[in-house]
Amino acid sequence: MGVLSKIATSGRHGENSAYFDGWKAYDTDPFHPKHNPRGVIQMGLAENQLCFDMIEEWVVNNPRASICSEEGVDEFKNIALYQDYHGLLQFRKAVARFMERVRGDRVRFDPDRIVMSGGATGAHEILAFCLLDPGEAFLVPTPYYPGYDRDLRWRTGVELYPVPCDSSNDFKLTSSALESAYAKAMDESIRVKGLLINNPSNPLGTVLDRDTLKDIVRFANDKKIHLVCDEIYAATVFSAPEFVSVAEVMEEVECDPDLVHIAYSLSKDLGLPGFRVGVVYSYSAAVVSCARRMSSFALVSTQTQHLVASVLSDEAFVGRFLRESSERLGTRHRDFTRGLARFEIGTLHGNAGLFVWMDLRRLLREATFEAESELWRVIIDEVKLNVSPGGSFHCSEPGWFRVCFANMDEETMAVALARIWKFVGQRQGGEEAEAAKTKTKKKKCRRSLEINLSFRGLDDYLTSSPHHSPMSSPMVHATT
Amino acid sequence: MGVLSKIATSGRHGENSAYFDGWKAYDTDPFHPKHNPRGVIQMGLAENQLCFDMIEEWVVNNPRASICSEEGVDEFKNIALYQDYHGLLQFRKAVARFMERVRGDRVRFDPDRIVMSGGATGAHEILAFCLLDPGEAFLVPTPYYPGYDRDLRWRTGVELYPVPCDSSNDFKLTSSALESAYAKAMDESIRVKGLLINNPSNPLGTVLDRDTLKDIVRFANDKKIHLVCDEIYAATVFSAPEFVSVAEVMEEVECDPDLVHIAYSLSKDLGLPGFRVGVVYSYSAAVVSCARRMSSFALVSTQTQHLVASVLSDEAFVGRFLRESSERLGTRHRDFTRGLARFEIGTLHGNAGLFVWMDLRRLLREATFEAESELWRVIIDEVKLNVSPGGSFHCSEPGWFRVCFANMDEETMAVALARIWKFVGQRQGGEEAEAAKTKTKKKKCRRSLEINLSFRGLDDYLTSSPHHSPMSSPMVHATT
Repeated sequence: MGVLSKIATSGRHGENSAYFDGWKAYDTDPFHPKHNPRGVIQMGLAENQLCFDMIEEWVVNNPRASICSEEGVDEFKNIALYQDYHGLLQFRKAVARFMERVRGDRVRFDPDRIVMSGGATGAHEILAFCLLDPGEAFLVPTPYYPGYDRDLRWRTGVELYPVPCDSSNDFKLTSSALESAYAKAMDESIRVKGLLINNPSNPLGTVLDRDTLKDIVRFANDKKIHLVCDEIYAATVFSAPEFVSVAEVMEEVECDPDLVHIAYSLSKDLGLPGFRVGVVYSYSAAVVSCARRMSSFALVSTQTQHLVASVLSDEAFVGRFLRESSERLGTRHRDFTRGLARFEIGTLHGNAGLFVWMDLRRLLREATFEAESELWRVIIDEVKLNVSPGGSFHCSEPGWFRVCFANMDEETMAVALARIWKFVGQRQGGEEAEAAKTKTKKKKCRRSLEINLSFRGLDDYLTSSPHHSPMSSPMVHATT
Repeated sequence: MGVLSKIATSGRHGENSAYFDGWKAYDTDPFHPKHNPRGVIQMGLAENQLCFDMIEEWVVNNPRASICSEEGVDEFKNIALYQDYHGLLQFRKAVARFMERVRGDRVRFDPDRIVMSGGATGAHEILAFCLLDPGEAFLVPTPYYPGYDRDLRWRTGVELYPVPCDSSNDFKLTSSALESAYAKAMDESIRVKGLLINNPSNPLGTVLDRDTLKDIVRFANDKKIHLVCDEIYAATVFSAPEFVSVAEVMEEVECDPDLVHIAYSLSKDLGLPGFRVGVVYSYSAAVVSCARRMSSFALVSTQTQHLVASVLSDEAFVGRFLRESSERLGTRHRDFTRGLARFEIGTLHGNAGLFVWMDLRRLLREATFEAESELWRVIIDEVKLNVSPGGSFHCSEPGWFRVCFANMDEETMAVALARIWKFVGQRQGGEEAEAAKTKTKKKKCRRSLEINLSFRGLDDYLTSSPHHSPMSSPMVHATT
């Protein structure tokens, strides 16, 4: 009785994945520096928490930006009532301008092509609904973000067809990989009607270089398939090479603009995932029109549109924010990868994103995804870190893990690194571990077994750190 | 090139309807008391603008409720980061409690069954996706809200099958109408898997009485089909009989709770459509779980969740607001229907909603929907009122129009009434018009042809009205 739909009863929601299981493990035993110091540290969440102080300062200094302040309440009614699916003009203008700045002011975006969506999640689903029929497929280079399986497939009936990339060339996407995946799909009678790329890449933390991007545009154009570019990490690039958007490249390569669509969001670049500001930007007028109609199902709250429009319209602030955010991400990335390197844990060389792609292949019992899963369970259950196994990103070779580093404070990162060191030390056996430890050449206080190795942030934590009280940890609230 | 999906290229988005065409007519020539006094008055928008002063006062007096105030900014980071599809606990609790109060505290709602959606629009689509497969149908009593054709059908492939109701019994839904529609669908090999009711009804402005509601629940239970109750106008009831929710009745009738689902929203009851706060409330755990996963595509902005939670947690305020809102709606409804009655324009007797169901059958050239369309075009183009023709609500008999009255100030309503009077007067011919005019038995100043008949609000407008400056009209901003 009460029979539900096939969509409801299918497993295509994609939640039965190690990626989400890890979150649940964290939820049941979340780390807290004081109250639960042996709890699971959340390193499976690509959040950007490093620049909140700047936004907080801005909102306090600009009370008119809020419709709930004495200074801004005269706008309350008009904003609360506005439900047109075009969105507030000042919002569209500000987001278009922000997208330009994030892309180095080398391209223009038309505010009339900005379509709202419920985060990038909603943007992807809208594009899948607009572009493909059920059963048709997007090519997607692997490894890719596990949420795609839900976002693009679940309610649309669309398929994702992998384009395997691997460590032999640092997971770079090549024309031959695209061609052979396309040919393979044809052999299997799968109708490929689009290519989805994620640039900068989650989970790789790398950007596509200009030539590769040109090849990609040419490929889509030759095959007459849609090209969806997920650029939600555009502003997380913290070192060279710079980010190149498809918006730039399509001006340099002959291509049908009707085939090119960008998914964007402020969740990563501004660090505001709760606000659900997603964007579909299409060069096809028909897609803009259809996507806008679909946006009725997930408009951005006008309270939030109004605030975001105000923040992003402050061009001086945006400039400061983008510089500072990139700098802080760079510092955090450097500290984290150096920390890993002390135990000779390698990561794919990246220059973007809120995570590293960590190479634990040498710790696998054997080169299989079963062995990867086993290792991952140990990391979750014993090391108490929620990292995400490469298999859940459809990676074609086992032993890689995505580890997020921007969703915590320095002290928590230090604890996480200490746990990794201890674990790797144990795995590699006593001798190797000792050898690695002596590399640090510093005397350390040893307060606990958990935290037993040297690290700049860790040192601060163990002595005193007035600016980073454990009580300001984001984890505090997750437990309450 | 750039071929789009069948969904994108189908007309199932439902926008090619007189209902939406009227909005466009308004958009191109919006009324403004000073700047465009002959423009189109928007009476096609079911907005509740009568109690904004109360909410505005509340937010100014409660700065901690905003994460953008000096008092509330300490919550900014945690709120802006929160993206869990369960929603903030205080939000779910406050919404559940509000739903209880709106339903006279006669039923309880479980905060853990509150699922967020992008307004009622999103709630309906989620329910359609959860419950029905493409090609399966919901029975829907007519007339019904035109947006249903988009919300429940467009991307889901689900069908709506009409249960015709008409003026012979004041558009009441009967068991026999349900049974015969069900039998007819069976004959046509259409698989009916649900029944959608809207209580209070848009466009009728009526509530379902307890016995009818019991019959409905029994019907759904007998047929083992889902019952979706759209209760988004629950708090707009302004006179007896009181609103009875399906939540009450299902406790009194034997039924499988897994079949019962409520769609709710704060767009009408609180008058905050821009905030996109929709709710799916299901008595089926499986639907709650599936709907929650689907809510990922359209979570409510946490900035808005936080604010709404704060407002609704103020129980004293909620009590005052509900009383005052109902009173103001009642006054407005009374003024408007009395105004229409002066020219013997009848309306269906209603006690809820933000609109009346106006009977213009006697003005039709003939009793057809073509004649209704003709009349509607005259009303839009010459009378310059955007009202919505019954045909666009799938009404089974021509000549009815939905007219919204709560989305404007009193002065604008007075102008609208004056235009209706003039039009009806002309249509009925000089004599009849004169007869009707003399009924008013008052001397009036006649400042213009547009505004030439007596009415309390109109009188105020023509003399002076300090509390209702024309500049505070919502229309002002629509033109800028």
